[in-house]
Amino acid sequence: MPDFTDNLSPSKPDGPELLAQERAQSNIPVNELANHLLGKDGFLARQSKVLSIVQNEPLLNKSHQQNLSRPDRFKLALARGKLLRRLADKHQWTQEEHETAEYLVDDVSPYMLHMGMFITTIREQANDEQRAYWLPKIEGWRITGAYAQTELGHGSNVRGLELQARYDPRTKEFVLHSPTLTASKWWNGTLGRTANHAIVVAQLLLPDPSGAEGSDGTKYVSYGPHPFIVQVRDLKTHLPFDGIVIGDIGPKYGYATMDNAYMLFDNYRIPHSAMLSRYSKVDPETGRYTKPEEAAVVYGTLTYMRSKIIQHARLVLARAVTVAVRYTSVRRQFPDRDGASNSVELPVLDYPTVQIRILPLLATSFALHYTALAMQDIYSKTRKQIESGDFSSLAYMHSMSSGLKSLCTTLAADGIETCRRALGGHGYGGGSGLIQLNNDYLSKPTVEGDNWMITQQTAAYMIKKIAAAVGSRGAATDEIDVQFGTYLPLVQSSGNGDCKYDILGNDQDLVKAFQHRATALAYNVYQERVIKKRAWTSLMTHFHKLSKAQSQSILVTQFYEALATNKDLPRPALAVLWDLYRLFALFTLEADRYEFFTCNAASRSQLDEIPNNINELMARIRPHAVRLVDSWSIPDYLLDSALGRSDGRVYEDLFNRAHRLNPLNKFTVNPNYWEDEIVKGGDDLKSITSKL
Amino acid sequence: MPDFTDNLSPSKPDGPELLAQERAQSNIPVNELANHLLGKDGFLARQSKVLSIVQNEPLLNKSHQQNLSRPDRFKLALARGKLLRRLADKHQWTQEEHETAEYLVDDVSPYMLHMGMFITTIREQANDEQRAYWLPKIEGWRITGAYAQTELGHGSNVRGLELQARYDPRTKEFVLHSPTLTASKWWNGTLGRTANHAIVVAQLLLPDPSGAEGSDGTKYVSYGPHPFIVQVRDLKTHLPFDGIVIGDIGPKYGYATMDNAYMLFDNYRIPHSAMLSRYSKVDPETGRYTKPEEAAVVYGTLTYMRSKIIQHARLVLARAVTVAVRYTSVRRQFPDRDGASNSVELPVLDYPTVQIRILPLLATSFALHYTALAMQDIYSKTRKQIESGDFSSLAYMHSMSSGLKSLCTTLAADGIETCRRALGGHGYGGGSGLIQLNNDYLSKPTVEGDNWMITQQTAAYMIKKIAAAVGSRGAATDEIDVQFGTYLPLVQSSGNGDCKYDILGNDQDLVKAFQHRATALAYNVYQERVIKKRAWTSLMTHFHKLSKAQSQSILVTQFYEALATNKDLPRPALAVLWDLYRLFALFTLEADRYEFFTCNAASRSQLDEIPNNINELMARIRPHAVRLVDSWSIPDYLLDSALGRSDGRVYEDLFNRAHRLNPLNKFTVNPNYWEDEIVKGGDDLKSITSKL
Repeated sequence: MPDFTDNLSPSKPDGPELLAQERAQSNIPVNELANHLLGKDGFLARQSKVLSIVQNEPLLNKSHQQNLSRPDRFKLALARGKLLRRLADKHQWTQEEHETAEYLVDDVSPYMLHMGMFITTIREQANDEQRAYWLPKIEGWRITGAYAQTELGHGSNVRGLELQARYDPRTKEFVLHSPTLTASKWWNGTLGRTANHAIVVAQLLLPDPSGAEGSDGTKYVSYGPHPFIVQVRDLKTHLPFDGIVIGDIGPKYGYATMDNAYMLFDNYRIPHSAMLSRYSKVDPETGRYTKPEEAAVVYGTLTYMRSKIIQHARLVLARAVTVAVRYTSVRRQFPDRDGASNSVELPVLDYPTVQIRILPLLATSFALHYTALAMQDIYSKTRKQIESGDFSSLAYMHSMSSGLKSLCTTLAADGIETCRRALGGHGYGGGSGLIQLNNDYLSKPTVEGDNWMITQQTAAYMIKKIAAAVGSRGAATDEIDVQFGTYLPLVQSSGNGDCKYDILGNDQDLVKAFQHRATALAYNVYQERVIKKRAWTSLMTHFHKLSKAQSQSILVTQFYEALATNKDLPRPALAVLWDLYRLFALFTLEADRYEFFTCNAASRSQLDEIPNNINELMARIRPHAVRLVDSWSIPDYLLDSALGRSDGRVYEDLFNRAHRLNPLNKFTVNPNYWEDEIVKGGDDLKSITSKL
Repeated sequence: MPDFTDNLSPSKPDGPELLAQERAQSNIPVNELANHLLGKDGFLARQSKVLSIVQNEPLLNKSHQQNLSRPDRFKLALARGKLLRRLADKHQWTQEEHETAEYLVDDVSPYMLHMGMFITTIREQANDEQRAYWLPKIEGWRITGAYAQTELGHGSNVRGLELQARYDPRTKEFVLHSPTLTASKWWNGTLGRTANHAIVVAQLLLPDPSGAEGSDGTKYVSYGPHPFIVQVRDLKTHLPFDGIVIGDIGPKYGYATMDNAYMLFDNYRIPHSAMLSRYSKVDPETGRYTKPEEAAVVYGTLTYMRSKIIQHARLVLARAVTVAVRYTSVRRQFPDRDGASNSVELPVLDYPTVQIRILPLLATSFALHYTALAMQDIYSKTRKQIESGDFSSLAYMHSMSSGLKSLCTTLAADGIETCRRALGGHGYGGGSGLIQLNNDYLSKPTVEGDNWMITQQTAAYMIKKIAAAVGSRGAATDEIDVQFGTYLPLVQSSGNGDCKYDILGNDQDLVKAFQHRATALAYNVYQERVIKKRAWTSLMTHFHKLSKAQSQSILVTQFYEALATNKDLPRPALAVLWDLYRLFALFTLEADRYEFFTCNAASRSQLDEIPNNINELMARIRPHAVRLVDSWSIPDYLLDSALGRSDGRVYEDLFNRAHRLNPLNKFTVNPNYWEDEIVKGGDDLKSITSKL
């Protein structure tokens, strides 16, 4: 409906004008930098190919989804999941292109586990016969599968799972049984409403006269958790079979579109062939168990998944920073307090209190990027070694990936929220584009290993390695050995004289300071645990700090290496990237200045200077901020943000969402409390109560 | 529908058993401590009186609201708002009891601004005649009002508001006009759909031949933003009048139940009597302006509101901590790594990595509590001074309340999320009780003064005061003078010898260390700004750090004073509260160890010991954690948390919410991507697309 607001424009200078100024004041070549970052593995080409298709599909339009109830959000997502698979068929998308489409649509797909853990587990844990039977059905989506491991009572401690798979040698079947409520499967994505099959992880119980007595009087011995493939719903009615109870666990912080499941079994029988038997086997006749030969292979997949998580974290953070940089360049508030009385209002990104929240995160997105690339490389190399039967790098890779998963997802999760708050009031509104991102991403610090819990894995490996280094045992076999070989002597002799690193004047010395400090923390933990024999539990906060310090050191090192060995970095961008490197390192260092000081990894005089140094770096980076985020090439369709639009039309978009798209404005209410009517001519007190 | 899960129980020991053990191992007298905390002003009595009424109203049942769309959430909240006012009439609730009901129901009420800023502004800014006309209508809810100040383009900088109120002396009317889109009112609660009246803040423009030319050719001079009361909707149709466009701005991070508004005027005329004229006046005949005599009175209200915000922050944080402590006492995961191979799993609250996230926040809830009480006291005293014409304390109070608002809401907002993550996987689920709390509370770091922006106000006051102290001018008039008088000489002479405070052995020395360090930062900022004359903007991050340090010092001081002068604290609780005080102070101090070290507020040897000290304090507090949170007396109805239930029936409640209450389980889907059907016998691809 036309009204007088149709003729109004924002006050001048408006967003397009301000972003044009921002882009004019920097010489960063956006396309070249974008190619350097995301061109090499075809990411940009894939994105632009798929984008042109998905952004024109009415079902994939994002304008209204924030207003839907959760059941409607789920139905929409299921419809979108079907459509995307049809588009994949039609356009003959590769798996990567299909994934790019999911990324751009930005709904967590109800089919996610089918395409992920379900098929992966079949590929890796099924024997040849099982693979031949299942893979064609799965790849053609003729069945839909999920992965059911976590239970109501157990997540991190997989050995504590309660669901039982008792082998019945008479019928050659396994009996799945949930003896308690806490044995219920829980959180299992895709399974709540969508899947008709699932990998079910259960305690393998085999009859043994010397074992514990089961409910049927037989005695059993447990062989720990094992995976089984189970059809759980009828292919025609889509209802669960008798003896199985399944459902969706209900609303969550985010992931509205995902049907996370609960599932229980009541003495439910599955055939012997259900047990995935590539590595472990139960002889159907004798009931005898065969152990896997090399269990460590699983770590390879874990590391691969974690390098994916870090690649994802980098783009998530880049997205939040894109919104923050663009909007704070357009948003003006207050003239300069020391300026002339008639001076214009400043873009809020000119304020150091805004810069200090956004620009270090801009730098962090690059740090995460180069570390993700490095992890990909290491993964490929290790994969080759494994194929030639050499498993020696696995433990190192796994332990480092634990600490990095923890640190990188924490940085990204906290970073989104820091960016959102830096947007001021409008950051709280639906036009920020950061609400669903935040709500969905907040799962990441917990899934795939809780961010606090898994730092023990990094610490455990480092303790082992530093104990060897103290004893000077053996040659260096991995990066950690090299690090300890270099810095342990310095750490052990520290206190003798002042720190030699020039962290403000020499970029490589920043790397040294971080490696020195991580080594010092490792040495300290080693003394507490190995020498003083303190209880493991009592040292957990120390382990967490150690893992964080080591992971920070890796991020700084990889950022440095990437710039120092750069081959394809456009010259005008290089100077700014070095400033981003320094900002990332010094900002990270500042938070733990006391630690760097006491272990002699930095000198007092330089540590005192860091805040001023950070302010100077931010001032140098500031003019390039918009072009830097442009280089991350996040499409407006993905951003779905009035504040972060690439054209700067912030206020027009906010007003359009409010005045033209908001369903709340389609009805009129009755505010008189003594009258039952709530909506004029519609709902009243009684009808609303009946909906509850 | 009955099924086999009806007969299942959680594995043993279950929640009730574990919470009983927790409560048995502490001698904290819960009722006495609760009375000490919340008994004195009748809070507990009010809560229990109102609770018994609201928790039995079907419309106030919270079981299903997470599944509603935003329009339905809003309608429900409007219905609840009406019901609560009816209950207030029926039970003759006081205003405080009505507010307690809103607090327990925990929906942001669409009537909130009517009961808050609308009536308050009329009381404070209307002249006697205006009061007599409006107050009876407002108190009886015969009209519904809102407060419209913030605009699309301006929030913090109130002077930059664009909406105009031009005086037309011929008709003795004001003409409200929005010249741009950014002049649209924005964020104004209660106004989007509910209110029919609003206080509208606009630039007062009076005709003046020497002024700037308006759109009608008349020349105007601006007198800055002033409040007007305006009827914006028809009392019968509830539609906005011609020349006014109003609506709800759309979905937000939280506050789903609040109709935040946009509103624009097209040369809309209001009578002369609309201008609230207690302080400022425009003579209707001459068009001459009269200035307010004492503008500072407004600061009194601001401080009052901020002390309310801190009181609220304390209860919000207590709520999150209650959930976290109870659940992590029930949740068990992993046996002790150093324990026997058959040892039982530990409650996760036994892990220092869980304690370090939750217990300092438990301590913080007490720190916030005592500071809120102290602010209430100061407010009452200052109020009396003001009534006797003495405005001398206002500036101090206002500047301190800015820093405290910033710090306390940041602590609470971050604290909720820290608690949520400490809950592991289930913290991400709808049963945590922390989702809506988090989403709603995340508005607080931005509203009533952005948490980064307003720290300038604290810093500005401190710079003024320390400049006076350096010049030894005048006697102490407030606490800041006393602080600077004591510590400035020490700060100026520091570097001469080691720190004398015993922060690990003497509780009062912790207070001294915090006051010393805040003074040192103030002196540093004074030198940069006053002596070296550095630009205001360039020092903003310094100001932020200073304000934070000073506010931390106030929290530590007030916590200390409350315990040192305790009169009604139950003896067995006192020792634990001192440990909480130490934990709060040392945990806060640890994050900025380098600052305390370099300004000589703590010695290196003690600073090195802090992490061990914190671990010891946490181990001492741990057995009392459940009883401590019990003392905050948060009712289960308010918690609405499966994880935080006072009876510990965590898993039964989670399962009930999923299996029996979740609407997603009421329909069956069709997962086959080649079929259009989405819901069996219901929605298909086409019907879902049409809803978008």
